[in-house]
Amino acid sequence: MDDSACQCVPDLQREQRIGFAEVVYCAGKSDGQLREVARALFAAHRNVLATRCSPQQFALLQEVDARVQYHPSARIACLHEDRTLYGRGVIAVVSAGSTDVPVAEEAAVTAEVMGNQVERHYDIGVAGLHRLLERREALARAAVVIVVAGMEGALPSVLGGLIPAPVIAVPTSVGYGASFQGLAALLGMLCSCAPGVTVVNIDNGFGAGYAAARINRSCSNTAPDRSHA
Amino acid sequence: MDDSACQCVPDLQREQRIGFAEVVYCAGKSDGQLREVARALFAAHRNVLATRCSPQQFALLQEVDARVQYHPSARIACLHEDRTLYGRGVIAVVSAGSTDVPVAEEAAVTAEVMGNQVERHYDIGVAGLHRLLERREALARAAVVIVVAGMEGALPSVLGGLIPAPVIAVPTSVGYGASFQGLAALLGMLCSCAPGVTVVNIDNGFGAGYAAARINRSCSNTAPDRSHA
Amino acid sequence: MDDSACQCVPDLQREQRIGFAEVVYCAGKSDGQLREVARALFAAHRNVLATRCSPQQFALLQEVDARVQYHPSARIACLHEDRTLYGRGVIAVVSAGSTDVPVAEEAAVTAEVMGNQVERHYDIGVAGLHRLLERREALARAAVVIVVAGMEGALPSVLGGLIPAPVIAVPTSVGYGASFQGLAALLGMLCSCAPGVTVVNIDNGFGAGYAAARINRSCSNTAPDRSHA
Amino acid sequence: MDDSACQCVPDLQREQRIGFAEVVYCAGKSDGQLREVARALFAAHRNVLATRCSPQQFALLQEVDARVQYHPSARIACLHEDRTLYGRGVIAVVSAGSTDVPVAEEAAVTAEVMGNQVERHYDIGVAGLHRLLERREALARAAVVIVVAGMEGALPSVLGGLIPAPVIAVPTSVGYGASFQGLAALLGMLCSCAPGVTVVNIDNGFGAGYAAARINRSCSNTAPDRSHA
Amino acid sequence: MDDSACQCVPDLQREQRIGFAEVVYCAGKSDGQLREVARALFAAHRNVLATRCSPQQFALLQEVDARVQYHPSARIACLHEDRTLYGRGVIAVVSAGSTDVPVAEEAAVTAEVMGNQVERHYDIGVAGLHRLLERREALARAAVVIVVAGMEGALPSVLGGLIPAPVIAVPTSVGYGASFQGLAALLGMLCSCAPGVTVVNIDNGFGAGYAAARINRSCSNTAPDRSHA
Amino acid sequence: MDDSACQCVPDLQREQRIGFAEVVYCAGKSDGQLREVARALFAAHRNVLATRCSPQQFALLQEVDARVQYHPSARIACLHEDRTLYGRGVIAVVSAGSTDVPVAEEAAVTAEVMGNQVERHYDIGVAGLHRLLERREALARAAVVIVVAGMEGALPSVLGGLIPAPVIAVPTSVGYGASFQGLAALLGMLCSCAPGVTVVNIDNGFGAGYAAARINRSCSNTAPDRSHA
Amino acid sequence: MDDSACQCVPDLQREQRIGFAEVVYCAGKSDGQLREVARALFAAHRNVLATRCSPQQFALLQEVDARVQYHPSARIACLHEDRTLYGRGVIAVVSAGSTDVPVAEEAAVTAEVMGNQVERHYDIGVAGLHRLLERREALARAAVVIVVAGMEGALPSVLGGLIPAPVIAVPTSVGYGASFQGLAALLGMLCSCAPGVTVVNIDNGFGAGYAAARINRSCSNTAPDRSHA
Amino acid sequence: MDDSACQCVPDLQREQRIGFAEVVYCAGKSDGQLREVARALFAAHRNVLATRCSPQQFALLQEVDARVQYHPSARIACLHEDRTLYGRGVIAVVSAGSTDVPVAEEAAVTAEVMGNQVERHYDIGVAGLHRLLERREALARAAVVIVVAGMEGALPSVLGGLIPAPVIAVPTSVGYGASFQGLAALLGMLCSCAPGVTVVNIDNGFGAGYAAARINRSCSNTAPDRSHA
Repeated sequence: MDDSACQCVPDLQREQRIGFAEVVYCAGKSDGQLREVARALFAAHRNVLATRCSPQQFALLQEVDARVQYHPSARIACLHEDRTLYGRGVIAVVSAGSTDVPVAEEAAVTAEVMGNQVERHYDIGVAGLHRLLERREALARAAVVIVVAGMEGALPSVLGGLIPAPVIAVPTSVGYGASFQGLAALLGMLCSCAPGVTVVNIDNGFGAGYAAARINRSCSNTAPDRSHA
Repeated sequence: MDDSACQCVPDLQREQRIGFAEVVYCAGKSDGQLREVARALFAAHRNVLATRCSPQQFALLQEVDARVQYHPSARIACLHEDRTLYGRGVIAVVSAGSTDVPVAEEAAVTAEVMGNQVERHYDIGVAGLHRLLERREALARAAVVIVVAGMEGALPSVLGGLIPAPVIAVPTSVGYGASFQGLAALLGMLCSCAPGVTVVNIDNGFGAGYAAARINRSCSNTAPDRSHA
Repeated sequence: MDDSACQCVPDLQREQRIGFAEVVYCAGKSDGQLREVARALFAAHRNVLATRCSPQQFALLQEVDARVQYHPSARIACLHEDRTLYGRGVIAVVSAGSTDVPVAEEAAVTAEVMGNQVERHYDIGVAGLHRLLERREALARAAVVIVVAGMEGALPSVLGGLIPAPVIAVPTSVGYGASFQGLAALLGMLCSCAPGVTVVNIDNGFGAGYAAARINRSCSNTAPDRSHA
Repeated sequence: MDDSACQCVPDLQREQRIGFAEVVYCAGKSDGQLREVARALFAAHRNVLATRCSPQQFALLQEVDARVQYHPSARIACLHEDRTLYGRGVIAVVSAGSTDVPVAEEAAVTAEVMGNQVERHYDIGVAGLHRLLERREALARAAVVIVVAGMEGALPSVLGGLIPAPVIAVPTSVGYGASFQGLAALLGMLCSCAPGVTVVNIDNGFGAGYAAARINRSCSNTAPDRSHA
Repeated sequence: MDDSACQCVPDLQREQRIGFAEVVYCAGKSDGQLREVARALFAAHRNVLATRCSPQQFALLQEVDARVQYHPSARIACLHEDRTLYGRGVIAVVSAGSTDVPVAEEAAVTAEVMGNQVERHYDIGVAGLHRLLERREALARAAVVIVVAGMEGALPSVLGGLIPAPVIAVPTSVGYGASFQGLAALLGMLCSCAPGVTVVNIDNGFGAGYAAARINRSCSNTAPDRSHA
Repeated sequence: MDDSACQCVPDLQREQRIGFAEVVYCAGKSDGQLREVARALFAAHRNVLATRCSPQQFALLQEVDARVQYHPSARIACLHEDRTLYGRGVIAVVSAGSTDVPVAEEAAVTAEVMGNQVERHYDIGVAGLHRLLERREALARAAVVIVVAGMEGALPSVLGGLIPAPVIAVPTSVGYGASFQGLAALLGMLCSCAPGVTVVNIDNGFGAGYAAARINRSCSNTAPDRSHA
Repeated sequence: MDDSACQCVPDLQREQRIGFAEVVYCAGKSDGQLREVARALFAAHRNVLATRCSPQQFALLQEVDARVQYHPSARIACLHEDRTLYGRGVIAVVSAGSTDVPVAEEAAVTAEVMGNQVERHYDIGVAGLHRLLERREALARAAVVIVVAGMEGALPSVLGGLIPAPVIAVPTSVGYGASFQGLAALLGMLCSCAPGVTVVNIDNGFGAGYAAARINRSCSNTAPDRSHA
Repeated sequence: MDDSACQCVPDLQREQRIGFAEVVYCAGKSDGQLREVARALFAAHRNVLATRCSPQQFALLQEVDARVQYHPSARIACLHEDRTLYGRGVIAVVSAGSTDVPVAEEAAVTAEVMGNQVERHYDIGVAGLHRLLERREALARAAVVIVVAGMEGALPSVLGGLIPAPVIAVPTSVGYGASFQGLAALLGMLCSCAPGVTVVNIDNGFGAGYAAARINRSCSNTAPDRSHA
């Protein structure tokens, strides 16, 4: 096969179908693939996310389009030209520890580029419960709460019992030994005794931010149309 | 220990905190425990859910309160006196196969008792894609979509790429061999290539219905308060 | 082999070495084996524990010695003739849910028969945090705290951050799906973010009670001897 | 042991038994072993595959025989002197994402060197279903379809329900967290709800290409002989 | 929900798309569901398979249509009115042990009802290699070979190195301890050192028979059409 | 987000609640986070532990406070200004092999900085039983025994049957193949046939040292207060 | 297929090749299969083993040949007409607990029927080390030692460090929770720190007895022949 | 702790107890530990094995004693002064592939240094069965056969059915994907359908060589003493 031949088929209709442009998952992409897909998406959309993006890949994307920005902690490069707020409420992003921050930032930046207002509450894990209880009121006002935690992943259970909003739990690979790269937190969150907690993949801050944006948008502009259905 | 002593501490403030009364998980409860907790909750609330409830346990609950109803397929007994619709949009419950129906019913009945309008779309798995595509328009109108699937659990990935609403995926233990009692579907859903799909525990129809109710309620009556925040 | 031949070698010196008679694990023992080992141990000791004991096996043990008592919830049969308190402090046994009570009772009865004062705090899981916070003062006075929880097993993390005493966590097989018969709780407890929590096997209330008795005894009468060393 | 002694026993009769020369799996071979086995096989056959071949190992093979070619994306070095088409139909190779291309290329090149016509359809995963549906007609004409997908591996289920040809599914290690290096895709494909999908090892493009060649050859020249049996 | 409402959506176009009617997976279906789907399929097709069918379920299907037959060892009920041979070659079904026979029979009956000639070679596992070598010539004439084995699942590796035909390996749950209900055989077959072996789910004789039918049909009547493509 | 913004919320009340300052887990912390949390804790406490601390991170901590010391084998940096012995008895730290020493040192240094007297007994695994039996008398005098072992982790079972003190078992990732990075030792210790052995996470010497300090402190100064309860 | 047709191919040459007749694994065999294979083997050999044989299956085998004997604890039925001792040394069978006895008996009876002298040492696990040390001298005289243990499986490590003979470890499924049906013992034995311990499958007393017979026979009558090679 | 303090307790009585000096496992040892234990063992014994020894560690050992030799493929350094043959028969070492040779060499060199005659048969895996059958006669003469195989690990099953000698199976981590670093081969070997195959840890050539030496020595000089027992 000619290695320069087309290997990518960008899904340019995705924004129309589900409300946001196709997202580029950079890890594992060759430079040629990354350039090819970025060119097509940057030309078609005003906001585009590129996740798991290394600094080297960011440099390459900047060559394609100089407007691209980089969030190093979140490992996200993005085109963020449309700054409209599409979600009606606030999305709160909570992290249990400070080492969970990169995943939390991936969630927060994803939600922001998708048109949401985001509040960050970091390092308020359950071993020092007072830190969480002090934020309780603020969290109870959020439209959606994303909870990022590694190790045993207990924080969503505690939060899910305190507030009425939808809770999206993100297990992280923070921990060692029997955490098995995030498996302990993942299983714990899936088995949460607090009702109605949903879970995304290990370290998948992006997925949590995207799901929160789906929820928050469902609560605002698209809702009137549905009321006619 | 005196076996008749109090072993249950019903959380009577839960409705006030998160908007719905504590739910009774019947599996594994002794008759004495079940009676004790049911009495307290039935006295305090108009709508109460009792999940994983066997016909024998339903009979016992009926003795406690004759108004209790039973949904055999969903294995749910419930007090359902308040019929107000608290959620603004429609919650769609989709199942891939007909053997997934009991889990789908657990989700549907949970959402209904929590005050939501529910639409059921059953047996529309991906091996006969046209069945799904025919429902596409109806599903695109839903405020939240719950997708219940066993085996490889591919349905949420296909649906998540077709519609803008929040998608909650429920893996079921339908399958054999390498499905490992629902593990294959669980892992598949967590790794979905469709962005923003969230997942609950295997066979956890209840959790999915509850999460959908959190989302749908977040979209309606509680939203105005948040707009002042 | 002659099936009536001796298959059991009771460890009659164990009380002398580690302070308590050998414990009979009833599950899987044939009637002949159970009778043989019970006779030897009942003859040699005043307090003897027989765990995972079915009602049928209890009847058999009663034939061997009429003084044997039965705790059905804990599934323990025991000879409990010596009622001296050997442990100096109080051992608190906490359960997250009411379905965890059988395991909690196994821990509590084990500790009692080994000569300890036990306090029970049941059904105070983290989804209704106020139930736990109300017991905080009582738990802070305990010499050892045993925490029994299934599902995600978050309770030891919260408690371990609130009180100074040694915390022994017992995962239970309560839960379904991704709880994998207690694996989720086990991994979560091993990865607890609260420092200095130790863990025993799934559903091993006995082991937790025994470990607490080792600790509590280490705190009292045996301590003076060590101070001369 | 003398390290220069013979450690390899090339199976020179394999082509006669099963229709294609022994294939060299380069990973883990010492330079001496690689040189030894390559010499024997290149002398005995016109077409020889060397898989998982690093650029360094390719250089070494070129020293043994200058006719050796390299496919960097597929990581395959090969002697490809016999260009006869032995398979009667077309083998279609499909990839879900662009990061699955290296594995897809390993399948495609394997099938080509074994004497088959190959068509490539890359980056047509289920999250953008229209991309797949546009290829449906072309895929329905193939004699065998190889489907390469990571993450949840849903593509073979959708394709298996759309076309009559044999479908060989190849899970890839593309993904993270709960994909567990391809386990999620592997389990999903094994549990596919589309009937008659077969599966090869994770990232095993080679195995899929070889199996497709077995099938395609079984459909052509060897078939007449069997009709006399 | 009204339990008598429609829960099944038979895929009546499947025969047209992929060449054989939808297959009924009986396990887990309620009597009502089974009756509903059977009526629709029996009315629309001449050959219909119902797998994992208990004797009780067979009786129920016979009430729906008296022509239904039962293969107890294979646990298959079927309508088998069209006896045309659609596959050109012979499908050989091999089992390693005699306890693997039920799974092998599921494969064999599936292939037969789908219009193929089947040869059975049972109980010829690798621990008595001569039994296999005696069949070598017969197996080399087959168009497709299905190999059913439990325990370590070594038979496909040996066969795959002896014959040129496509080999479909079926791991069975025969074994104990470290076989982990067929996992050992599954992993072994996926890692086979014989090139081009494909694998189906544990105990999935049906899937293997179906895949073999896809291959064998691809080798015969559909092939001429493809040559014009 | 401004990356220099506060991401850490040190739990300054922890010493008051559970008797020792918050511990810094260095792995995965950015330099900025480490500096921020260290400054707060060093200012508030006399003894502070920083675990999993690389030499580079130690250098950074020394810049924050010149009194910080480093234990390279234990990978611990610490402020150790208060040298009071708070634990009444001796804590014995035992290792099975010499490659387990780093984990054993992490336990020993943790216990020492928390105010305990520690005795080390290294390389006395069960394959040379006499080495253990020679230390039996010394170990029988300890208030708590920490046992560190990799591979099959048999040492706690043997020790737990020989001495009356609480035994805390620490599985290490020493081993290969079926040790699965410490899983074999972890499972073995959880299933120990010696009663009352408790376990911490793989390689978690810190957790074992902390738990031992909780026990040993429970045995001394805090005990008198409890006797009034 | 005619269900009465031949499904079993007894390997009648096995005794000639490897020294003992094919063994019947009864679990999962239909009555017809069992009768068929038993008839062939009983006719051809003087000693035949039938393992995992239920009392019902024993009754069926007795109908085939009245000389068949039954060992209920070992679940073995056998023809044992040749009482010659083929192994030169003694095979010692050791069990850690009394609940491990059925597996130990399977090993012992297997070795006896294969012509070996067997010594039993039961219930001498490591938690009461003196019981083992008292048998040390007897065990040091054995030609082969089989060690049967569940839970953490520590006994082979201790024995392997005490005696020079080959040690075959048999993990049992005795235990619960984190023993995962014998997995903990299996992994522990595979990782034993005592050198040269070999392992068989969980609960595979038969395999251990057979391996011991291979070793013991290798040590006696067959050895002289090999000395001429 | 003073890092130069003694951390190793060489088991100098091991040769006397079990017939060979303690073996040094180099992986994970610090230079100081390695030097300390080597000095003690080299002074006390004529033959000493140091396994998993890197070239750097070999250089260090040579400084301790210039007589030390190195086998790079086997990664073994050794003192090999006593060249007496203690084992009576020949130990055959078989490998399935050429990439399994390092593990096979570890087994072979271990057996040689322990005083055994070794024959090597490499690269004779089951996919080219004739290579194995050609060696059948030679292998049937061996006193013990060690079989080293990765991927599906089928070779011991085939060999175990062909020869009467004890068979020790060594799974290797050769393979990828579903081989899970040797797990597939390990499980396969444990479940072998050939009776009396025993298994050691993944990649544990050393353990296999040691076990073979135990067996071969048990067959020679120690046997006469046992005949008096």
